[in-house]
This record gives sequence, structure tokens and C-alpha cells, in this order.
Amino acid sequence: MSEVIVVIGPGLIGQAIARRVSAGKHVVLADLHQENADTAADILSNAGFDVSTATVDISSRQSIQAVVKTATKLGNVMGLIQAAGVSPSQASPQTILTVDLYGTAVVLEEFGNIIARGGAGVVIASQSGHRLGALTAEQDAALAMTPPDELLTLPMLQPDQVTDSLHAYQLAKRGNALRVMAEAVRWSKRGARINTISPGIIITPLAKDELSGPRGEGYRRMIDLSPVGRAGTPDEVGTLGALLMGPDGAFITGSDFLIDGGVTASYFYGELAPNERRSGSGQQRQPYGKASS
Amino acid sequence: MSEVIVVIGPGLIGQAIARRVSAGKHVVLADLHQENADTAADILSNAGFDVSTATVDISSRQSIQAVVKTATKLGNVMGLIQAAGVSPSQASPQTILTVDLYGTAVVLEEFGNIIARGGAGVVIASQSGHRLGALTAEQDAALAMTPPDELLTLPMLQPDQVTDSLHAYQLAKRGNALRVMAEAVRWSKRGARINTISPGIIITPLAKDELSGPRGEGYRRMIDLSPVGRAGTPDEVGTLGALLMGPDGAFITGSDFLIDGGVTASYFYGELAPNERRSGSGQQRQPYGKASS
Amino acid sequence: MSEVIVVIGPGLIGQAIARRVSAGKHVVLADLHQENADTAADILSNAGFDVSTATVDISSRQSIQAVVKTATKLGNVMGLIQAAGVSPSQASPQTILTVDLYGTAVVLEEFGNIIARGGAGVVIASQSGHRLGALTAEQDAALAMTPPDELLTLPMLQPDQVTDSLHAYQLAKRGNALRVMAEAVRWSKRGARINTISPGIIITPLAKDELSGPRGEGYRRMIDLSPVGRAGTPDEVGTLGALLMGPDGAFITGSDFLIDGGVTASYFYGELAPNERRSGSGQQRQPYGKASS
Amino acid sequence: MSEVIVVIGPGLIGQAIARRVSAGKHVVLADLHQENADTAADILSNAGFDVSTATVDISSRQSIQAVVKTATKLGNVMGLIQAAGVSPSQASPQTILTVDLYGTAVVLEEFGNIIARGGAGVVIASQSGHRLGALTAEQDAALAMTPPDELLTLPMLQPDQVTDSLHAYQLAKRGNALRVMAEAVRWSKRGARINTISPGIIITPLAKDELSGPRGEGYRRMIDLSPVGRAGTPDEVGTLGALLMGPDGAFITGSDFLIDGGVTASYFYGELAPNERRSGSGQQRQPYGKASS
Repeated sequence: MSEVIVVIGPGLIGQAIARRVSAGKHVVLADLHQENADTAADILSNAGFDVSTATVDISSRQSIQAVVKTATKLGNVMGLIQAAGVSPSQASPQTILTVDLYGTAVVLEEFGNIIARGGAGVVIASQSGHRLGALTAEQDAALAMTPPDELLTLPMLQPDQVTDSLHAYQLAKRGNALRVMAEAVRWSKRGARINTISPGIIITPLAKDELSGPRGEGYRRMIDLSPVGRAGTPDEVGTLGALLMGPDGAFITGSDFLIDGGVTASYFYGELAPNERRSGSGQQRQPYGKASS
Repeated sequence: MSEVIVVIGPGLIGQAIARRVSAGKHVVLADLHQENADTAADILSNAGFDVSTATVDISSRQSIQAVVKTATKLGNVMGLIQAAGVSPSQASPQTILTVDLYGTAVVLEEFGNIIARGGAGVVIASQSGHRLGALTAEQDAALAMTPPDELLTLPMLQPDQVTDSLHAYQLAKRGNALRVMAEAVRWSKRGARINTISPGIIITPLAKDELSGPRGEGYRRMIDLSPVGRAGTPDEVGTLGALLMGPDGAFITGSDFLIDGGVTASYFYGELAPNERRSGSGQQRQPYGKASS
Repeated sequence: MSEVIVVIGPGLIGQAIARRVSAGKHVVLADLHQENADTAADILSNAGFDVSTATVDISSRQSIQAVVKTATKLGNVMGLIQAAGVSPSQASPQTILTVDLYGTAVVLEEFGNIIARGGAGVVIASQSGHRLGALTAEQDAALAMTPPDELLTLPMLQPDQVTDSLHAYQLAKRGNALRVMAEAVRWSKRGARINTISPGIIITPLAKDELSGPRGEGYRRMIDLSPVGRAGTPDEVGTLGALLMGPDGAFITGSDFLIDGGVTASYFYGELAPNERRSGSGQQRQPYGKASS
Repeated sequence: MSEVIVVIGPGLIGQAIARRVSAGKHVVLADLHQENADTAADILSNAGFDVSTATVDISSRQSIQAVVKTATKLGNVMGLIQAAGVSPSQASPQTILTVDLYGTAVVLEEFGNIIARGGAGVVIASQSGHRLGALTAEQDAALAMTPPDELLTLPMLQPDQVTDSLHAYQLAKRGNALRVMAEAVRWSKRGARINTISPGIIITPLAKDELSGPRGEGYRRMIDLSPVGRAGTPDEVGTLGALLMGPDGAFITGSDFLIDGGVTASYFYGELAPNERRSGSGQQRQPYGKASS
């Protein structure tokens, strides 16, 4: 029977991971837009992978279940790469929570019901999830363990609590990593593992558009001032994803791996600290890099 | 000129990482006890590495500076593996804070002053650092950026605040990861990177002793109930360390990588949740794994 | 100063290796046809790499020298991926020897004159080079060490000796691996390494065309009867290339790595053995796989 | 059911590969001397591996069959690391042929009969096998495919043909790589792969003894004049072995990977060329490295 890898949201990051773990397997490329799935299918098919496509709206459990059905008919699902989501510049807070938080929770639940023994998955979250201040232990637990269909009724996620898209995005991505922890426990009953990758600025066609768009200056400053001083490549995320999904990651499950060129470190303790924090009355702290020179 | 890798605390984890990144380089093995350094030197020398030994007490800046001097005389320091520390079953809260928290901060500061362009380091922390509840943003910043020699005067670290060794250990390990964030900013000025690895239960001779000692039953239960269902090997940490220190980790700095077989996930949201939390009046939550069965 | 990776013949195999070793470096994509270089540049630029293009005809030393000049102006040349060549279905014996054998020899010589300390290269040869019977030690040495500009005057390479394109191709690819041995000695004087990869059937758009073309049936039979039972992917070659060019390959130079799904093994000792050999009077040998069933 | 990795001849090279592919599996360590197996068992057990030991004399099919029985009782045999053998300084030509050539052939045959689907193996041969001049196609085929129990009756292996231990060793190691080709075909029927690694001078306690023994000067000269300029480490072989045995090697079977620091390249075309060849009347060729300076 075939072994199947499912990529939900097969942009360049999803593709880069798939390239590393799918030789000799069947790859299901599922996207909201058939056109995106087709583009990915062309690229990966030309690069020697056996592929098929599907459309999926991860905000719909029924839609996810249809992909699960497609995938399980094709063989044993050995891998899940959940890279679908909407970005804060694209959508309302409510849409972000519905797709990125609820949708990912359902994807993990449904694939966790059928993942094969020895299988593994990764969820692509974001450095944004690391930028949010600490939540309470109760909030963490609620994001991790509330049944998906009740998630969006949590008080902390109501419109009066989440008023802008960036905040919604940060909550959703934090929620992804927490959800992965709880699902790691459940996936282990089937002998499978699941982890989160939180990438920083990774160059893709979409990211290039943003870098030359209205918010581009901010992003370029973030890259220039970051410790590594450059953006990342999808293939660098691919290498990390391959480790997590393969035998070298066999002792890793429920973890969240930040790969961001040091942007988060600098945001908290370096030149990328927001102005209000750098000049805040309470701290008066010089960013670390400055202090040392 | 030679390239030098420095291993502070060269037990099996430090050795496993060193094995993967030190071929053709000179390895300095520095331990509190000359005997331990010699044992590691024998093993690595027999395995083809060019080694020398040193003694170091990382609770002393002067002692660390002596190792730095030894290392820089031998060549360009391309790598630092900081694996030294005391465990909660070995020492008092004050000793743990002095060695694991303060000592690591000084190690990072002193090696950050001389690390070579293109160099990289890893600090071995612990899953214990992930088990502590959230600190405030101010506490995080204090642990990350307070000058090392003022660290132990922080109010949060005083004996009335830190009364048991396990708490001290969790704080120290949390502090290591925070410190690494701040140092990632500073190391980047020299074109170098630094990350944290937080291992779970990794089998070493010391760990084997603990597994058969008075607290062994607790550890064995932790392993049995964990998602992966086994302890890790030093070589699994070595593989992760090699990724972080090598070119595949070039976009990763200031991050903390948890490799624990899912114990932390299960501690928060699975069968390893402490009883008080599982039966707590406020939550009445079934661990996730149970809920799904 | 920038670090530069040069890809000569940036088809999917060259790209796959480049993706794995070029993050944060500048990639020079040089092809006979500007259009091919541009296509590769689009793909890699969209995937986060800093690229420039050049045209090169590797049958011309002057043309190669121009690429060397372009590359060295951009920075230190840390990597060479020589993947240019013509295939036996595309060209005459003389063209194949001129491009694949002579051209590769000049590429290795010219880049070997400027490769940076710590640099590395790979030459993409072919399983075809492993299919040719043994040459004499003198022929091996001649292919390895004859100054490039005298190579094509060797008696063994004259038109009366090499009458078909496949034979020319096998000789050229055998010659590549031999040349790499000699150049490994010379590159080592600059602290650099060079190896050969001999891929089997790797799916690329060109390979897909051949699989559906007039010789397609033969190729498909080769794949079906091969030990691994499938074609390879460019990314699988990329992973091997990354090992050879990176620190994990530091003890490897002058070697030739066959990655062919077992086709060569089966050609000599299995179901893919040519009929004349299988029914040969001298041996009457059953292929190994059959014998065991 | 458990997954089992079998290491025959668990010296440092065998251990280094085992460390990389055996986490969570059971490792059978089989050596001619129980004491060697016990030493390896101590080391690997202390490093977190689940191990058992066996004695085996690979010159005896019965003895190999006993190990196979032990291993298959423990679980599915997913991996074979055949690193046992005698060296030319240790034994007579006949012993070398019996152990290194015949013994390895039987090991491959017996484990090839029971290797699990998805399994893989590596045989540790030697750079010495690359040093021998070309054999005829008939000799190659005879070494590859003659039933093991008839191997030692081949005319080419009779005492009048093989008069010194080094020649016997080179023949045996060449024979290993050829045998692996034929076995790759047979192993593929069970969905498994098998490859050869041909290491150069790798530092182990035994190698260190030789470097300081009567032939030490020759070895040290070989290292000093080699392209890489140093000996290799077992862990470098371990990394290559892990690639070949794991998913990244899925398209590689029946191949022979030379990892020798360039010694072979230099032996044929560099400073390590034997004097008789360098001053030979027929060639009068300067080694390549000299020629270029």
C-alpha cells in the first residue's frame, strides 16, 4: 500500500518540507484554491513526485474530512504538513481565528484520527506567536484542549477581546503551538508525532510582494536589524521540517521550533524592541546589543 | 590557524554534539573535575579528535576567563557547547542558581567576546525550564539582560523566593534560554549564533543511576507515560546540536529547542499532569490523551 | 565579502543542490542559454536566494574564464556545482566529448585555480560512467591527468575509437570521475574538496520528455525492474550533494557517489543485464535476483 | 514488535553508525570475542541503547545463522552493519579471504534472507579495495555472484594467485563491494537496500596502535600527504552510514562510498603515488598536485 504525505497549503514552505520527506511516496496537495494546488502539483510532479490535488477550506470540518478521505484512500498517511492559513494583512480578526486557530485544530484532530504508526506531522505557525506576552495557565490550557468546535466561543477570543488582525494572528499562532502539545499526546496513542515550526520572515513570492508593498519598509528594517541580517529560505525550513518528521526527530514531539534569524530575540532584547518598550518608564533598558558595544 | 570547539561539562551529551562538529578541529574539554575532562579526552582522542583538557568552575568568572585564554591560544573559537551544570538532586538552591544561572551567563558573556565569525554555540538547558509557569515580562527581561554579576541580587532569586532545589533549577534553565536570546543579539555583532537545547530524560551513566535510585520510580513512570515512551539518547541531542551549530542552522539563533519525548506536552496536557492539576477544582480537565480514547 | 556558489547548468539537479548550500550566499547561475539561467534565477530568487545569471559555453575556456571572473568579482567562490552537459540523445560523439569531457575538465581547472579555502565542489556525472567496462590504468591516468587542451587528441578518443554517442557519453562520464580524482589533489592545495555524483534516472522535465518519447519504453522498463523500483528526485541528489559540500563531507574528496536506485547493480548482476550477457556462452549465469527466488 | 539493528564487529565505526540509526530500537552486538561485544554493549547501553550481545565467527555459516536466529527472535531486523573483518597486518592471505570475503558474503546472504521490508544495511570495506587494478568482467562477476560456499574455490583466489596478505585484503574488499551489488538486487525483492562504505584511515584504538607501530611511519606519511591532511573519525563514517541506511538514502542501493580524505585520489594521481609508478618508464608522469604548482 502506498505511503501518503498530505500538504495543506502547499506554498513554498510546504513544498520545501514535502520535497525532503516524500520521495517514493504519494503527495496530496490541498489548497483553498485549486489553482494553487495545481501550481504546486506542476512543480512537484516535474521534480519527480507522485502527486494529486484537492481543494480544502480548513475552516470547514466537512472539507477537511473530505481531504482525509481522499488521502486515506490513496494509502497510509505517514505525514501531515499543515501550512495553510491567512495572514494578518489579508483578513479580519474573526477570519484569522476561524482559519488559523480553529481550522488548524480541526486539521490536527481529523488527521490525528487516521495518522499511521510511525507517522509525523508539522504545523507551520509563525514567529508572531512568540511575540505575544504570556497568557495565563488557564488560557494556555483552553487553547490547547478545548474541543475545536467550542474554541471560538472562548471569552478570550471574542471580538471585544481581539480587536485587531495582528493580535488575532499572534493568538492563533500561539494557539497552534499549544494545540500541537495536546495533540502530541493524542497522536502518540497511534505511534505518531507532531511538532510546530515557527518561522520568521521567509522569502516566498507572497513575502516578496509584502517587502515591496506598503509595509515593506518595516519588514526590511526588521531583516536588516535582525541578528542574522537576512531573511530565511523555504529550504532552510524544509531542512528543519525533515529533521522533525524523520527518524532524527524520533524523540521530539509536542515541541515548537523557532527559526527566525533571531528576530524574536532582538524584538525582546535587542535593536528590534518596539520604541515604547525601549523608552518605557518602567524599564529604561538598553537593548542588549547596544549595551555591549 | 586551528579552529577550536570548547565543551564545558563534557558528559555524554556534550561529547555527542562535539563528535558531530569537531572533526579536523581542536576540542577543549573543560570540567570542574580534571578526572571527568580526562575521561572525555580519552574517549574523544580514541575516536580521532585532537583534544586538550582544562578544569573550570563556571561559578567563577576568573576560572572561565582562564578557559577562554586557553582556547584562544589554540586557535579561533568556532564553537561553544555549554553543558556544565548541577542537577536539583545534587545541590542547594543557591548553588544551582550560582552555577546553572550565573555561571552560564558568564560563560556566554566571556565566549561571546571572542567567538569567531561564523561560529556558533549551544547551551544545554532542560525540559525543567519549560515546566515553570510564566514569569512576568519584567522577570523575563531581568533574567535575560541583567549584567551577570548583578544577577544573583535580583529579588526574585532571593532565598525567600526560591526555597527548593527544583524551583531553583527550573528558574535557572528558564533563565538560560532567556539569556541565550539576549546573547544571540550580542553574538550576532561578531557574526555568530547561539541557541538553547532543552533535553528531557536522556540516558547517561548519571541518568541510569537516578533511574535506579530513590527517585527512579518517578522517572520511570515519566518515561513510560510519555508520548514517545522511551528515554532519549545523547546522540539524538547530538544530531539536533549539529544542525543548530552547522550551516543548516544558519537562520536559527536565540531559539530554544525542546527534545523531550513529549514529556512536557504530557505534563501540561496529558497523563503526566500532576495530580493536583488533574483534580483541581478550577479546571476539572481530563488529560487530552484520555479524552480521545 | 560575499560568499559565492556557482552553478553551471542550473537544471533541477543543480538547483536542488544549490538550495541546500546557498542560503545567505550569492548564487551565480550560468547556462549555455540565457533563458535557462533566467528560469533558474526566477525560481531561486522567489525562494529567497540572491542570484545573478551568466551564459557559458563550457566547450570554450574563454567562456569559462568569463564566468570565473564574474564569480570572483562577486565574492569568494565557496562552491561549484558543475551540472552542465549534453546527453547522448542530444548530440554527436564529438560534441559529447567536447562538452562533457573537455568542458568539465576546463571547468575544474579554472575553478580549481580560484576556489576559496574551505570551499567544495561537485560534478554531476551519470550512472552511464559506471556501465563502461574497465579501462586500462594508462587510459584512466590519461583521462585523469592529460592537460585539458590535449585531452581530445588522445588516441582513445578519436572518431574511429568512439563511434556512437552512448559510448562517448560513458567515456565522458567515466572521465569526469577520474578527472575529479586528479583535481581533488590539486584543489586540496587550496584547502578545498571536489567530488563526483553519478545519478541514475532522476525525474526532471527533460527526463519526463524522454520517458514519454521514443526511447521511453526502455527507460520505463529500467525503472520498473530496478531494485528501488522508481526514479529518483532532484532533491534526493540535493541531499547527497549537501553532505558532500558541507562539513559532514569534510573527509570526502576525490570520490564518486552513485545514486541510481540500484540500476547499475542490476545491469551487472540482475534483471537489467543486457540479453547478450544473460545468454552469453561463457557465463550462462542467471541474474542474482532470479537465482534467489 | 521490536525493531532490531545488528552490528557485526562493533568497533568504533560500527558503533558510530549504530548510534545514529538505533534510538528506540534493539541493537545486537556480535563479535568474534565476547569481550569486544561486552565493551561495545557497555558503551552503547550507557548511551541509552537497548542492547544484547552475541559471539560470531563470520567464517562459519552456522555461527552467522545463530546470530540471525538471535536477532529475528528479538524483532524485525531493520538494519545490518557488517563491520567485522581481519586486517592485512593481522592475518594470512587465506584467513583474510575466508573471513573478509567469504564471511561477508555469507553474512549478506543470511541477513538478506530475513531483512525486513524498509530495512537497510552497510558493509564496511576499505579504501584498499579501490587500490587494486581493474579485474576482468568475468572476475568481477565471479566475486559478485558465485555462491558463497564455492567462492574460495575460484582459481583467482588460490594460494598461487594470492601470495600476500595485502593483496588478499584488497581482493576481499573489492569483492565486498561487488557482492553488495549482487545482493542489492536480491535484497530489493524484500524491499531492502544494501551499500558499501570504503573508509580510509579512520582513527580507532587499533589504528592508533598501528600509527605508533612498525608501519606507523608509512601511515603517518599517507595522512600528511593526503588531500585532506588528516585521518577521519568514526563519527564521520557514522554520518555517511546514517544517510545510506535512512530515508535520505532511499534511492541508493548497490553503491560503494569511498570516504578516505582523498588518499585514493592521491595514490593514483598525486603525491601518494608509489615510487615505481612515479618513476616508471612507461608514464613519466608528474603527480597532479606537483604539476599544477
